[in-house]
Amino acid sequence: MPLDHWSNLSSGEMLVLESVFWSKAASRHEVATRLHLSKSKANALIADLLAQGLLQETGPGPASTGRPAETLCLSNALGILLAIDIGATCMSIAALTPSLLVLAQCREDVDVRDAQQGPTVVLARIKVLALRLLEQCGKRAKDVLAIGIGVPGPVNFENAQMVSPPLMPGWGDFSIRDFMRDSFEAPVFVDNDVNIQAIGELRQQQGTSNFLVLKVGTGIGCGIVCDGKIFRGATGSAGDVGHICVDTSGPHCHCGNTGCLETMAARPAVERQAWEAMEREDSQVLRRHAGEQGMLTLAAVGAASREGDMEANRIIQRAGSLVGQMLASVVNFFNPSHVFLTGSVVTVGPLFLASVRQSVYQRSLALSTRNLHVQYSSLGDAAGLTGAGVLAMQEFLKSRRLHR
Amino acid sequence: MPLDHWSNLSSGEMLVLESVFWSKAASRHEVATRLHLSKSKANALIADLLAQGLLQETGPGPASTGRPAETLCLSNALGILLAIDIGATCMSIAALTPSLLVLAQCREDVDVRDAQQGPTVVLARIKVLALRLLEQCGKRAKDVLAIGIGVPGPVNFENAQMVSPPLMPGWGDFSIRDFMRDSFEAPVFVDNDVNIQAIGELRQQQGTSNFLVLKVGTGIGCGIVCDGKIFRGATGSAGDVGHICVDTSGPHCHCGNTGCLETMAARPAVERQAWEAMEREDSQVLRRHAGEQGMLTLAAVGAASREGDMEANRIIQRAGSLVGQMLASVVNFFNPSHVFLTGSVVTVGPLFLASVRQSVYQRSLALSTRNLHVQYSSLGDAAGLTGAGVLAMQEFLKSRRLHR
Repeated sequence: MPLDHWSNLSSGEMLVLESVFWSKAASRHEVATRLHLSKSKANALIADLLAQGLLQETGPGPASTGRPAETLCLSNALGILLAIDIGATCMSIAALTPSLLVLAQCREDVDVRDAQQGPTVVLARIKVLALRLLEQCGKRAKDVLAIGIGVPGPVNFENAQMVSPPLMPGWGDFSIRDFMRDSFEAPVFVDNDVNIQAIGELRQQQGTSNFLVLKVGTGIGCGIVCDGKIFRGATGSAGDVGHICVDTSGPHCHCGNTGCLETMAARPAVERQAWEAMEREDSQVLRRHAGEQGMLTLAAVGAASREGDMEANRIIQRAGSLVGQMLASVVNFFNPSHVFLTGSVVTVGPLFLASVRQSVYQRSLALSTRNLHVQYSSLGDAAGLTGAGVLAMQEFLKSRRLHR
Repeated sequence: MPLDHWSNLSSGEMLVLESVFWSKAASRHEVATRLHLSKSKANALIADLLAQGLLQETGPGPASTGRPAETLCLSNALGILLAIDIGATCMSIAALTPSLLVLAQCREDVDVRDAQQGPTVVLARIKVLALRLLEQCGKRAKDVLAIGIGVPGPVNFENAQMVSPPLMPGWGDFSIRDFMRDSFEAPVFVDNDVNIQAIGELRQQQGTSNFLVLKVGTGIGCGIVCDGKIFRGATGSAGDVGHICVDTSGPHCHCGNTGCLETMAARPAVERQAWEAMEREDSQVLRRHAGEQGMLTLAAVGAASREGDMEANRIIQRAGSLVGQMLASVVNFFNPSHVFLTGSVVTVGPLFLASVRQSVYQRSLALSTRNLHVQYSSLGDAAGLTGAGVLAMQEFLKSRRLHR
């Protein structure tokens, strides 16, 4: 849809579009309730948006009593969303409908830590892959409505640039937006990987408005949802929990301090501890897994744990317990209703989640934990792409509403 | 002003009143800018509110160039605010104008921990004192516009009731609002003491929107301001940082855990440590102060510190360092622009603030602390009453805007 058409929409129409997007499968009644509109006013706005081809009906939803109501979703005619999830070692790209149905997707290895590549090489490759996906859907670059990108490092959300990313040489202050603009007219929104997952979870968890998404992988970071919005802090670094101290006599961290959570419980720490246990001859199981693969990966530690290896279990429990210790402080401070765990380490085995929970519930105040749920993210592997899609659509709709 | 008059105000007029209240001394130009209104629209709304006697002019403000602009404030004709600050051992009450000028105030000892008294005795006494203050100002109960009350314990903000307050027998689930209604028709808003101070600081610190107010006194608690609003968490217990663990091998706390910040750095801990040092004969200075007063108060520890006593200094530095250790975690997580310190312990001497700062800046990430200011609250002793007044006025204006 051409951009100038958006300028003609009323504030009420824009709010209806946002409401339909956030509710996933909304009935007319739900839209009216959410926006505090009369039934007739909501129906008029919706009829108008249907006539313009901006909304579409998706058939009857589940009925409690009587005739089931038609549910609404954003029209595919609005355009295509590009969702891009850049990780430390691989990247995923998807073309999505405005309602976040996947039309095409691909995944490719990448090494963002390689200074030889840098943002121009990586982003040029992303452009090639994105255009190929569009072609698969019979679409072109001008059909793209908005682009959402998740990156593994700190981001200045306003200008969509990374800020001194520790792992990504050359990306600091590089204008991702300008680089993408050569190929796509659509607006580009960039956020860090865990904020992206938090915004995906926000759409998934209808009505849950104060929660955390904690990612434990190569690094450790936290997405904060505060009164239904991503909270980025005074200078954009909120959620940087990997360097919270969990052991004043712990090992040195690359940040210059000692006993940082990240240096004791992230993936490299778990793999290192397993390697050390194997070298101490503490575990035949770990030695066998190391033998098979030439190194001890997180997956190998997980496999050893599932075989009942005591050392692997001890290492996983220790990592979970330390993550839980940090979370207990954060839960006392922030009083979230949910903590959603994500990242390679949390899925290494059920012992991890159990240890996190034990540690949190033991240390947090009764009042903070009375209704606290600590659980896996419901989005699983798709969390990054879903979040990038939600970011793209919500920021697009918001910007059109505010800049009419 | 009669309540039904408020119902006739437009949404735009209500927003102008709120804007004038929050800006302390606003010019017409500032109101227009803040509310994104045209100059003519803002002038028309302001002229209308002046004509109705809801705003008043306070004379010219400071001029940068040319003729200084008239500044505006809420009219005294709106009514009187009652601000009530209930502490563990004393309570303060003030009658304020809508712009928070103090017309009359008083202070009286109270022991909220005394189960013999309970809320009915304490609140009945508050009513007597409040009516006496009104009389001093030539006003009556019906002239009261809104009542703001701060209490030293957890509060359910919606129903204005305390929730299992650890120090205040009989106050849990007692309806403060119903009790006050017998004497005052005005709406009653209740929040805990540190949220009250945070809301006062929010008005004081014009334009600062992500900060913490940390109170270290008999207990330790934190008020959280998030995107310009008080954040209360999923179940209202956000900011409960006194039971964050700062030493896994620390002493037992009444909450059932070990090494809680409160049990190591709040006022009773500082006084206990000083007493122990004196008993170990480590400090002649502390013994002299104990001798003079029959016990070692926080003030005595402060006096010993100012005399250069090593033991007193060590105890204060240790408390500040532990508070800083907790703050470092919270700063990494929340990335505030400011931490404002308040409460009896933070003012025991300059060593406390210095130790907090050293500990925070050493442990927090460069990115989180690059623009972080750790300083005393600017409101000083008046923080509680000012906050209760801000709470009363802002919640009154907000409720009238939303329930027109």
